[in-house]
Amino acid sequence: MGFIFRKMVVVGVGLIGGSLALDAKRHRLVEEIIGFGRSEQNLRFAKKHGIVDRYLLDEGDTPEDTDFLLSATPVQAEVSTTARFLPALQQGCIVSDVGSVKGEIVRGMEKLLPPGVHFVGAHPIAGSEQWGAEAAKTDLFVLHRCILTPTRKTDEQALKKVATLWRRVGARVEMMDPETHDKILGVISHLPHVLVYALVNSLARTQVPGVDLKSYCAGGFKDFTRIASSRPELWRDICLMNRKSIGQTLGDYIKNLERLKGWIEKGRGALLEREFARANEIRGQIP
Amino acid sequence: MGFIFRKMVVVGVGLIGGSLALDAKRHRLVEEIIGFGRSEQNLRFAKKHGIVDRYLLDEGDTPEDTDFLLSATPVQAEVSTTARFLPALQQGCIVSDVGSVKGEIVRGMEKLLPPGVHFVGAHPIAGSEQWGAEAAKTDLFVLHRCILTPTRKTDEQALKKVATLWRRVGARVEMMDPETHDKILGVISHLPHVLVYALVNSLARTQVPGVDLKSYCAGGFKDFTRIASSRPELWRDICLMNRKSIGQTLGDYIKNLERLKGWIEKGRGALLEREFARANEIRGQIP
Repeated sequence: MGFIFRKMVVVGVGLIGGSLALDAKRHRLVEEIIGFGRSEQNLRFAKKHGIVDRYLLDEGDTPEDTDFLLSATPVQAEVSTTARFLPALQQGCIVSDVGSVKGEIVRGMEKLLPPGVHFVGAHPIAGSEQWGAEAAKTDLFVLHRCILTPTRKTDEQALKKVATLWRRVGARVEMMDPETHDKILGVISHLPHVLVYALVNSLARTQVPGVDLKSYCAGGFKDFTRIASSRPELWRDICLMNRKSIGQTLGDYIKNLERLKGWIEKGRGALLEREFARANEIRGQIP
Repeated sequence: MGFIFRKMVVVGVGLIGGSLALDAKRHRLVEEIIGFGRSEQNLRFAKKHGIVDRYLLDEGDTPEDTDFLLSATPVQAEVSTTARFLPALQQGCIVSDVGSVKGEIVRGMEKLLPPGVHFVGAHPIAGSEQWGAEAAKTDLFVLHRCILTPTRKTDEQALKKVATLWRRVGARVEMMDPETHDKILGVISHLPHVLVYALVNSLARTQVPGVDLKSYCAGGFKDFTRIASSRPELWRDICLMNRKSIGQTLGDYIKNLERLKGWIEKGRGALLEREFARANEIRGQIP
């Protein structure tokens, strides 16, 4: 099988962008991989470790024959950084991304790009709390879902090529519309992050004279709140860009907590048990 | 070193009671260990696997020279099951427990027990989602905290003996008053359980036509909601018995979520980032 793309520019050579670059190179899916980013130190690291073949610091140096631009920056920056590449993007070039939010990004990219430059929204569901090129690793996406979010405007051929790229690095590709993606991720990923950030702050606000509560958190609480180690500015952006879906989900969640609080305070044991048992059963059905 | 106790009755030979029995036997801390419980099948298992030396099905058969009664039942049942042992408990006998809630249990036990029968409230912070004698294992408590909650009424000698027992199975013994215990556990353990049960039910209420949301939960969400696999009736009881502390903590938490929801919906990025960054910093300080 030949290369899927000739020349790929990875904008943001971090955990996700860097890991895709590594695998794309290793599996010979892309002929040349060029890094782009704000930190030259990060790009030097990426080049030294074979994550990218070379790197650019100026969008104007983007090669004319670039046929794939991957936006792998924090979500809030995706559309604006892509805009700076516009003069360099030729007809037929495909632009894709890896953002955890899709609706606003897909709308922004489709509005931004000229006819003939094709956008395909993508979100590989893989990662960790680490970041930077140092965090990149091979096979990060194997058996993980990669959700593609085509719209009526999406070019069929571009969609096919991006899907093939993700499949060949081991991901299980699925398609859904951007709003469905944001609703699902809102509840399984974005809401939990908000809850955990808030929980850790609740801990900080709980004052017990003479006791450092943090020292009691070594076990379950620590595991449970691991996601609070994620980068604050990343999650600020995700919350703002998926605000509609997160707002609704959070509103529903708060109502449910109010109900549980009432049951606890009024000693409604049977209702509490039914609620907990239902969650227990659903949790058991997660594959 | 000689035995700390001659004859110990373990009421509820489950994960915690069974694991303490195993270690007490192995380290020769107790001469004879007698199981008691509702399920003879569970007790037979415990005897067969050397967790207890023998077992009773009738409180009336409790040996006269029992010098340690360990209440290791679900918290709601502790005081009432202990009450049924009253006729059998001699002067000098020590009663202790392992419950995750202390205030209401300590008050109940101190009111229940006659002068000369000494209660020492204890909570070893160790465990898992498993239960029953089958879940018992050696060294479960090694390097884990065991919080003892003495009051003005607690007998010094009894406290000393129970502390020694826990230290000799490897636990790090700490003392605090029952209300402080309930406040700390309310925020680091009880609140997270309520949040996760509610989160799993939020997932169930989120309808996406044609999509089984559970199939998207295999990764982080599944780890995150592991505690929803805990026994519903156990957590119902903990919520009811620590209702004051959980109610307050949950109220504070809900207020904080309302604030975050407002910031998300109004796009207040700087405030969100500050909140997330604070949690991130505190999380980094957990040892």
